[in-house]
Amino acid sequence: MSAGPTSHDYGKTGIWLIGARGSVATTATMGLAAISAGFADATGCVTEQAVFDGVDLPGFADFVVGGHDISDVSMAKRAEALVESGMLPLHLFESVRSQLVEADQRVRPGYDPRQESESQAEAARRLASDISDFRISHGLSRVIVLDVASTEAPVETVPEFTDIDMLLAALEDPSRSVLPPSSISAYAAVLAGSPYVCFTPSTALNVPALYELAVGSGVPTAGQDGKTGQTWLRSVVAPALSARGLRVLSWAGTNLLGGGDGATLADPRAVSGKLQSKNRGLRELTGGAATPLHIDNVQDLGETKVAWDHINIEGFLGSRLTLQTTWTAFDSMLAAPMVLDLSRLMALAHASGEKGHVGALGFFFKDPWGSNEHSFSRQTDNLVEWAQTMSSSTAAGTGIVDQQ
Amino acid sequence: MSAGPTSHDYGKTGIWLIGARGSVATTATMGLAAISAGFADATGCVTEQAVFDGVDLPGFADFVVGGHDISDVSMAKRAEALVESGMLPLHLFESVRSQLVEADQRVRPGYDPRQESESQAEAARRLASDISDFRISHGLSRVIVLDVASTEAPVETVPEFTDIDMLLAALEDPSRSVLPPSSISAYAAVLAGSPYVCFTPSTALNVPALYELAVGSGVPTAGQDGKTGQTWLRSVVAPALSARGLRVLSWAGTNLLGGGDGATLADPRAVSGKLQSKNRGLRELTGGAATPLHIDNVQDLGETKVAWDHINIEGFLGSRLTLQTTWTAFDSMLAAPMVLDLSRLMALAHASGEKGHVGALGFFFKDPWGSNEHSFSRQTDNLVEWAQTMSSSTAAGTGIVDQQ
Amino acid sequence: MSAGPTSHDYGKTGIWLIGARGSVATTATMGLAAISAGFADATGCVTEQAVFDGVDLPGFADFVVGGHDISDVSMAKRAEALVESGMLPLHLFESVRSQLVEADQRVRPGYDPRQESESQAEAARRLASDISDFRISHGLSRVIVLDVASTEAPVETVPEFTDIDMLLAALEDPSRSVLPPSSISAYAAVLAGSPYVCFTPSTALNVPALYELAVGSGVPTAGQDGKTGQTWLRSVVAPALSARGLRVLSWAGTNLLGGGDGATLADPRAVSGKLQSKNRGLRELTGGAATPLHIDNVQDLGETKVAWDHINIEGFLGSRLTLQTTWTAFDSMLAAPMVLDLSRLMALAHASGEKGHVGALGFFFKDPWGSNEHSFSRQTDNLVEWAQTMSSSTAAGTGIVDQQ
Amino acid sequence: MSAGPTSHDYGKTGIWLIGARGSVATTATMGLAAISAGFADATGCVTEQAVFDGVDLPGFADFVVGGHDISDVSMAKRAEALVESGMLPLHLFESVRSQLVEADQRVRPGYDPRQESESQAEAARRLASDISDFRISHGLSRVIVLDVASTEAPVETVPEFTDIDMLLAALEDPSRSVLPPSSISAYAAVLAGSPYVCFTPSTALNVPALYELAVGSGVPTAGQDGKTGQTWLRSVVAPALSARGLRVLSWAGTNLLGGGDGATLADPRAVSGKLQSKNRGLRELTGGAATPLHIDNVQDLGETKVAWDHINIEGFLGSRLTLQTTWTAFDSMLAAPMVLDLSRLMALAHASGEKGHVGALGFFFKDPWGSNEHSFSRQTDNLVEWAQTMSSSTAAGTGIVDQQ
Ligand SMILES: NC(=O)c1ccc[n+]([C@@H]2O[C@H](COP(=O)([O-])OP(=O)(O)OC[C@H]3O[C@@H](n4cnc5c(N)ncnc54)[C@H](O)[C@@H]3O)[C@@H](O)[C@H]2O)c1
Ligand SMILES: NC(=O)c1ccc[n+]([C@@H]2O[C@H](COP(=O)([O-])OP(=O)(O)OC[C@H]3O[C@@H](n4cnc5c(N)ncnc54)[C@H](O)[C@@H]3O)[C@@H](O)[C@H]2O)c1
Ligand SMILES: NC(=O)c1ccc[n+]([C@@H]2O[C@H](COP(=O)([O-])OP(=O)(O)OC[C@H]3O[C@@H](n4cnc5c(N)ncnc54)[C@H](O)[C@@H]3O)[C@@H](O)[C@H]2O)c1
Ligand SMILES: NC(=O)c1ccc[n+]([C@@H]2O[C@H](COP(=O)([O-])OP(=O)(O)OC[C@H]3O[C@@H](n4cnc5c(N)ncnc54)[C@H](O)[C@@H]3O)[C@@H](O)[C@H]2O)c1
Ligand code: NA
Ligand code: NA
Repeated sequence: MSAGPTSHDYGKTGIWLIGARGSVATTATMGLAAISAGFADATGCVTEQAVFDGVDLPGFADFVVGGHDISDVSMAKRAEALVESGMLPLHLFESVRSQLVEADQRVRPGYDPRQESESQAEAARRLASDISDFRISHGLSRVIVLDVASTEAPVETVPEFTDIDMLLAALEDPSRSVLPPSSISAYAAVLAGSPYVCFTPSTALNVPALYELAVGSGVPTAGQDGKTGQTWLRSVVAPALSARGLRVLSWAGTNLLGGGDGATLADPRAVSGKLQSKNRGLRELTGGAATPLHIDNVQDLGETKVAWDHINIEGFLGSRLTLQTTWTAFDSMLAAPMVLDLSRLMALAHASGEKGHVGALGFFFKDPWGSNEHSFSRQTDNLVEWAQTMSSSTAAGTGIVDQQ
Repeated sequence: MSAGPTSHDYGKTGIWLIGARGSVATTATMGLAAISAGFADATGCVTEQAVFDGVDLPGFADFVVGGHDISDVSMAKRAEALVESGMLPLHLFESVRSQLVEADQRVRPGYDPRQESESQAEAARRLASDISDFRISHGLSRVIVLDVASTEAPVETVPEFTDIDMLLAALEDPSRSVLPPSSISAYAAVLAGSPYVCFTPSTALNVPALYELAVGSGVPTAGQDGKTGQTWLRSVVAPALSARGLRVLSWAGTNLLGGGDGATLADPRAVSGKLQSKNRGLRELTGGAATPLHIDNVQDLGETKVAWDHINIEGFLGSRLTLQTTWTAFDSMLAAPMVLDLSRLMALAHASGEKGHVGALGFFFKDPWGSNEHSFSRQTDNLVEWAQTMSSSTAAGTGIVDQQ
Repeated sequence: MSAGPTSHDYGKTGIWLIGARGSVATTATMGLAAISAGFADATGCVTEQAVFDGVDLPGFADFVVGGHDISDVSMAKRAEALVESGMLPLHLFESVRSQLVEADQRVRPGYDPRQESESQAEAARRLASDISDFRISHGLSRVIVLDVASTEAPVETVPEFTDIDMLLAALEDPSRSVLPPSSISAYAAVLAGSPYVCFTPSTALNVPALYELAVGSGVPTAGQDGKTGQTWLRSVVAPALSARGLRVLSWAGTNLLGGGDGATLADPRAVSGKLQSKNRGLRELTGGAATPLHIDNVQDLGETKVAWDHINIEGFLGSRLTLQTTWTAFDSMLAAPMVLDLSRLMALAHASGEKGHVGALGFFFKDPWGSNEHSFSRQTDNLVEWAQTMSSSTAAGTGIVDQQ
Repeated sequence: MSAGPTSHDYGKTGIWLIGARGSVATTATMGLAAISAGFADATGCVTEQAVFDGVDLPGFADFVVGGHDISDVSMAKRAEALVESGMLPLHLFESVRSQLVEADQRVRPGYDPRQESESQAEAARRLASDISDFRISHGLSRVIVLDVASTEAPVETVPEFTDIDMLLAALEDPSRSVLPPSSISAYAAVLAGSPYVCFTPSTALNVPALYELAVGSGVPTAGQDGKTGQTWLRSVVAPALSARGLRVLSWAGTNLLGGGDGATLADPRAVSGKLQSKNRGLRELTGGAATPLHIDNVQDLGETKVAWDHINIEGFLGSRLTLQTTWTAFDSMLAAPMVLDLSRLMALAHASGEKGHVGALGFFFKDPWGSNEHSFSRQTDNLVEWAQTMSSSTAAGTGIVDQQ
């Protein structure tokens, strides 16, 4: 790897989490500290697999975490609740408590649409300067902005969405709120010259004019909606059925979950975005099978997510076969290592000069930006190939890229 | 495809089924007739998928079926029982009954170790000449021999297995039965110069000296043990878990099945071979997880097979997640289209001059000969690539290859 | 049983099915014919169990079937579709086809709210005289009216529901449709002096003034919504958990079904009544656990119903345990024997002089009329005790009770 | 309840656990301490249900725990391991650690067949005097002996089993080991005049001569093999299917478990006893269905037990329906409250003068002694009726019964 960047070339990298005090963010932060300190293995991290051996990425110990949130409950408090719920092991929490406390001190107030008096443009500039301050004060080569905030309800498209000038004008108008919070955060990342990752199904960069601004600013972007559990399994099994010429007639699913995400998704408007994002890939993969899908908020399950799928399939001579799957997991435990993987890979993308949607990161997402590929095995091939190509093409010394 | 063989180049191809009156064989024969006559689609046939569009293969209507069996129950009788059990649709059976009756007239007595007075060499020559007679009397370009007979118990290795001369001598000795029936059938295929496929977990070509003879005779061979249900699903899911860095701790499974296969596997000796063959791939894919596995003969399930798997997985920070799968299918309905696919692809292999184990056909097998690859997605890539390469490299006119 | 009525005492009994051409009705009619003719056992009929040996009930062969429907598709046509879907065995259908054709000739046009010009009172009188004609022309001792028509949407309560005079007046007004069709049918049964059973979750007798009329007319009534599958299982398991002091925290369920019922329940208004009826008992049995529940119309499942339940339970020292159940059945195959049981038991109730809701028949219903008992084992005890008491108290000769 | 014993009348009661340092024993001891101290509810305790309100039983705080074991790992150490495995909450353990340490000091060396030089009679007398010493030194009214030791392999019947004199003679012979350890412990309980409960499938009192001695000594006895999970669920569901006239064709099951019990049952001889005990009731309840059953030792599951059942059922007109259940629980968390319930109820039995097998306690057992009833709902009725009868018939003052 003499010609490529070495870990050292990356310098220190920032991870800026939108929703920094949530379950995913807290788990990722705790895991990063535990892995860096050697208290835990990086189980669940894709970028630690053998196939990435030759790919140069920042080391876990070279990240610094900060972020935005609108909640006052600190990361440490949140972690305590996660320990209490049985998701996080107490001893691990205790061994990295001080790092959590430190990270929490780097959390700044996010954009809360219920409270703002400033214009949305002012808000975005405020958020962007939080990110820049973080970069400068910690001597970071770059800051990866990652949205892991609560899922928002989908919004109606307005003319401003497709016209940069109209959009910019509307954002300056303190009486208007033309963009949802996720898009404001994404815009802030763009303003800060930061790579941006959307781990949620929220609107974010699904505003053409905003995406145009992102591309114009030369940052790599990736999304959308982490593919961690049921949807991931579907993207594994559906292409395999299809490779055998078996025809999916219906694929019905139910999700039970508690926690913060469960509470958010109890809102029928918020859940509708999630349901769409979850089902889009399956529809593509099965070519029009019936796909009823439910998400139920079942608070007594705590941080556990249970997903049941029933797949009705047509086989040889019109025969029927069924596959049922039941998936039980702590949801944030699946998401957190992906947050770390994405941080490493977006550092690579940025160092390599990628701009706009990095379709090869579709591996991580339910609704991939920049790609129509939903098959997990093909996404795996694409990811590995991309990472190897990027890594070998990146010239030494380009590791450190200026952010504005 | 001007340079490659066209369907027409293949002429007529024979399928010679060892176990021709069993459930898989009967279903495959019925399906072939129904598809050829346009009464049914080729759902479940891999070679009918878009990705094989450019691959030249014999058409369904260009096959003729014959075979060996040791049972007196005709294919039509067997099909009636399958209709009765709910597996085969009555109307389909009725529409192709005459073809079944015809095929059954081409079934010859197989090698029955309980009844033979002839030496095993004589038996093999008898079986081989049945195959040759079939080829000649129907004007077939080639005959694909496919073993779908009852699973045998594993046998002890003896010195003759690794020494061609000793083996041939022992075969001529009427007082000895050095090879199990599956190996006699495989040997007969070799003698007849036929491509040979082992769809069962029986010993077959797992006798080094016999395999040497097969390679020497220049025929392509493929096996072993059709990967149709639970094992297939495992080969889909295990690599995907591994691609995410999730660590399988245990993968426990239970199979419930009735029918002829269930009755055979009720014998603890017969089932041991099946269990080994089913588990080998999983052990490779998971690197040493605990894999308890059971096969229960539950006759009231008829032709239905139900497989339950419980997978215990280690994720981020030592957390645990579980996946449970329940697979319910008519087993022979999964196997039969593979029998047709294998017949087509072995015709291609033979036309292309392949000799010995065709590892690229590992896609179809629990325990692939000529390959250590168990990941279904990688097997899919390998299969497609192989088929495309073979198809394009095969010169026009080579479609018809002499069999001795 | 010398003092009680004998089978003979009952004479011939009519079963009048509202929704006579539906799946449940057709299956029940076919089953009755098959059992009567000795072509099938009465598997699934409660009243054939040993514990009912001493209870005197009409024999299967002593029933005659007729009914109302608003569909033109005959019972035989419907049965053919059920055979095609794999639910009904062809040979059985063929052996009783003529009985189905005969029964279908006794089906009269039901009350179709979309088409009526007559007042609702006129409609009810027309339906009632169909029932009376049926009784007289076939020399029946009594006619049991059983509603197995499509599930209706719940209706808003209006003042007429609680005031007999207002209700009767409104019914005579041709410009008004104060009652839903199920209530018109129930009213017709009352007018005909017939025992009435509501196997659906529709409004039916849940109109206090109408129920008052029913009680006044001295007929026994029973309902509501047949407890055949998932809800039945819940009423088995929930009391057993409670007997062990285990606390249900949540009981989440999903139903997948196709067929006519599935299509009807795809209508969000129709399904809401069903969901309420399904959940009421569970809430009682678990004392306020979270019980999210879904019914999905999955037409490719045909007549099959699949129900998945996930139960999260608190045990000793706050520990958690889970039970998951998956139930797969042909729904009408579960309902049909209950229709026969209810016909026999309502004949007993009528012969015994029962009036109004027979709570002891709660065994059969999701939402029992005349009882708050939802535990299946206690309902079993109640049913058996009631039947034995009725049977022994019924004097000989009272078997035949006049209907007006 | 003026005539019956009050809690006070029982005085202090001893619980003497054979296998006192095992998982079940440790959990029961911890739970008793936690409930007595008000740190936890008695969730999972049958005797705390409303229906037992009028039944007089010893209070939780009036028990003292001691026992035998052959392991040197203390209860507190065992509890720590259970906390580590995620089964026991840390804070609860910490709050009752001192009580566990105290209880552990009352544990005496059990009978270890691998080490004994004494005759079995001497061993039994040594164990019996441990029990008597415990009773006397803690001023206990009575001591309930409860076997929760490791499952033993079944033993061959010998002539001594049916002849008291031969048995007693053999026991005095130091060169013979005619009884398995569980029977020595049961004999010790008899010698100590203690009520005896067998929570395991081991031989214990299944030695007719030994049981004769037990009856002769006038103590109540109860067993066998705690019915906590899968078997319990079967005893709930099977009778309910039967009440509906549905016919079970096969009931296949698989158990996955780790922990000490899993390790013990990995021994094919030990597991055979367990499998028999688990299946006997199901066979009775289903009348001869096929019931394949497996228990797999899956150590990575820790204390979790997962049981999967697949039930194939014949319904109306020969149709098939299936029920699948998946049960996931911490096994000892199910057993521990039953240990407490049995201690309370055996105190009642003893105070009431019951002798020999108390069939009404069949509620708690897979293989009930003194009863052929396996239906859980009927067992519930029997238990409640028995407890109420005993409680009201017990005269005041009889609470304290002499033990020899
Ligand atoms: N497996 C997974 O966990 C998974 C998978 C895919 C997607 N996601 C998505 O990740 C997101 C986070 O999930 P979670 O379980 O951590 O949820 P959570 O409710 O625990 O955390 C969300 C956090 O976002 C904060 N927040 C809300 N609005 C904000 C705003 N405008 N600005 C800044 N912060 C804001 C909240 O205060 C909270 O701390 C959700 O959108 C979820 O759908 C999670
Ligand atoms: N999904 C599947 O169905 C599947 C998958 C993988 C492997 N297989 C294997 O395919 C084989 C066939 O399965 P099936 O369900 O058709 O079984 P089956 O019992 O219905 O048929 C087996 C047939 O083999 C015949 N036979 C037995 N010994 C023979 C001999 N020495 N020579 C010739 N014929 C002989 C029998 O008479 C019978 O007709 C089995 O070995 C099975 O393990 C099936
Ligand atoms: N396990 C079960 O099958 C089950 C259990 C409980 C309740 N139910 C209820 O039983 C009913 C019948 O179920 P199904 O599967 O037979 O449905 P279906 O759709 O096959 O049959 C319903 C029949 O009712 C007829 N109908 C509609 N409106 C009518 C009216 N006003 N008057 C007379 N006939 C009318 C329809 O034409 C149709 O023939 C449904 O309400 C269902 O919810 C069924
Ligand atoms: N749900 C349940 O947990 C459940 C249900 C039914 C039956 N059981 C039975 O309860 C028993 C205990 O289960 P566990 O999970 O606590 O097992 P465990 O292995 O954790 O504990 C068994 C204990 O018995 C001790 N022991 C072994 N032989 C002994 C002897 N001769 N004398 C005294 N002590 C001896 C061992 O040292 C160990 O401490 C098993 O037999 C099990 O089959 C448990
Ligand atoms: Na896309
Ligand atoms: Na009620």
